[in-house]
Amino acid sequence: MQPVKVYADRRSQPSRAVIIFCRVNQIDFEEVTVDLFKSQHLTPEFRKVNPMGQVPAIVDGRFKLFESHAILRYLASVFPGVSDHWYPADLFTRAKIESILDWHHTNLRRGAATLVQHTALAPFLGLTTSPEAVKQAEKLLMQSLGVIESVWLKGDAKFLLGNPQPSIADLSLVCEIMQLEILGDEVRDRFMGAHEKILIWMDNVKKATSPHFEEVHELLFHVKARMLQSKAAASNQAFEPSTKLKIASKL
Amino acid sequence: MQPVKVYADRRSQPSRAVIIFCRVNQIDFEEVTVDLFKSQHLTPEFRKVNPMGQVPAIVDGRFKLFESHAILRYLASVFPGVSDHWYPADLFTRAKIESILDWHHTNLRRGAATLVQHTALAPFLGLTTSPEAVKQAEKLLMQSLGVIESVWLKGDAKFLLGNPQPSIADLSLVCEIMQLEILGDEVRDRFMGAHEKILIWMDNVKKATSPHFEEVHELLFHVKARMLQSKAAASNQAFEPSTKLKIASKL
Repeated sequence: MQPVKVYADRRSQPSRAVIIFCRVNQIDFEEVTVDLFKSQHLTPEFRKVNPMGQVPAIVDGRFKLFESHAILRYLASVFPGVSDHWYPADLFTRAKIESILDWHHTNLRRGAATLVQHTALAPFLGLTTSPEAVKQAEKLLMQSLGVIESVWLKGDAKFLLGNPQPSIADLSLVCEIMQLEILGDEVRDRFMGAHEKILIWMDNVKKATSPHFEEVHELLFHVKARMLQSKAAASNQAFEPSTKLKIASKL
Repeated sequence: MQPVKVYADRRSQPSRAVIIFCRVNQIDFEEVTVDLFKSQHLTPEFRKVNPMGQVPAIVDGRFKLFESHAILRYLASVFPGVSDHWYPADLFTRAKIESILDWHHTNLRRGAATLVQHTALAPFLGLTTSPEAVKQAEKLLMQSLGVIESVWLKGDAKFLLGNPQPSIADLSLVCEIMQLEILGDEVRDRFMGAHEKILIWMDNVKKATSPHFEEVHELLFHVKARMLQSKAAASNQAFEPSTKLKIASKL
């Protein structure tokens, strides 16, 4: 059996979720880095793996798959070594997890990813920012964090839905929230400070997937440090697009 | 056994997908209308069914569930009378369908629903429109239609992925595209005109779910007719918010 090829960039939150999942569950996989800052996801070669030009994507033998939630469901289903709690066979428990995964797309992800894209990443990727988009993303992110805390972490829940062990939804959502790190401590705390339950839950997910969680997130903290350096440097000199792009390509 | 309660508003595209699915598969269900234009989805009573205040949602005995894709998966899994093609047990085929369902949230749905909201629905719901949001939604919708045609309907595919029978992804995506009807024929044709394969596929889904598809979409065509009337009337008189809201409440 060939190992599963996981095409990923660890700076992407769904990529990290898939890599951590594979490592925690001892799935025989090979990580293939697709550097988003070098536009490797847009090459004709990668388009043969994923016509959408996005990471993560997997190739398992002749089988190709994209979309991180679909990948997590697939890996949890085909590898018998994966514990049931990640994607329970019980239809009621599973349905509740599916509901969170679907909600994630149009709420937490839309809020958090749009915010990161329109603030921290925009100058590095040469994107046009929109204050209106930032405002809406912040609002959606705040609402989403409120929902996680009041609906799925109510009571003394250790993991989402009060489950005693994490599911693929816990992993996916926590990786999403981790992306806020690159906004800097101050902005992150503005969103997370009031959500103690979420911080405890994130720590539970981290512990349940340790040391893989920390290792796979290392790159994110390097990116964060570099971005803060660049920001400090930029505030001391005139804006030079070419300089910024050079910095970006090193991230 | 109590029938499954389906809380829905047929003007909502995911609501229609769930109702059509129940009817086609002869699931014993009771449709409970939650009138979005009367804000019934925001009442404390409905929040007990779905804390997110959105339709569709279901109650099956003591089990409550929201998010249309999760509902479709659940219904296909717990009702033995549902044919396998809707949500195949084969893990490879199922994974590909999951991939489309996940993609739907952040592509086709985000494009189509945002466009409808910021154009046709905005004046009726008293929403502020954003030309930038409209522009981005149009672009995303166009890209999404292109993807459906070139990736999942390539060759002589009758249904998505070249499957001989429809899946829950076919039903969900087609109901989404049907929502473009309320933009009026001219705008709808601007998007759909160049996509003959999509039109044929939509017709295949319609035929495979007839007469339920047409019946459940009847209200959408009433809404379309009323909106066009209101638009014509509005162009002949000064804008009166109170008049418009009155019209909206009758839709």
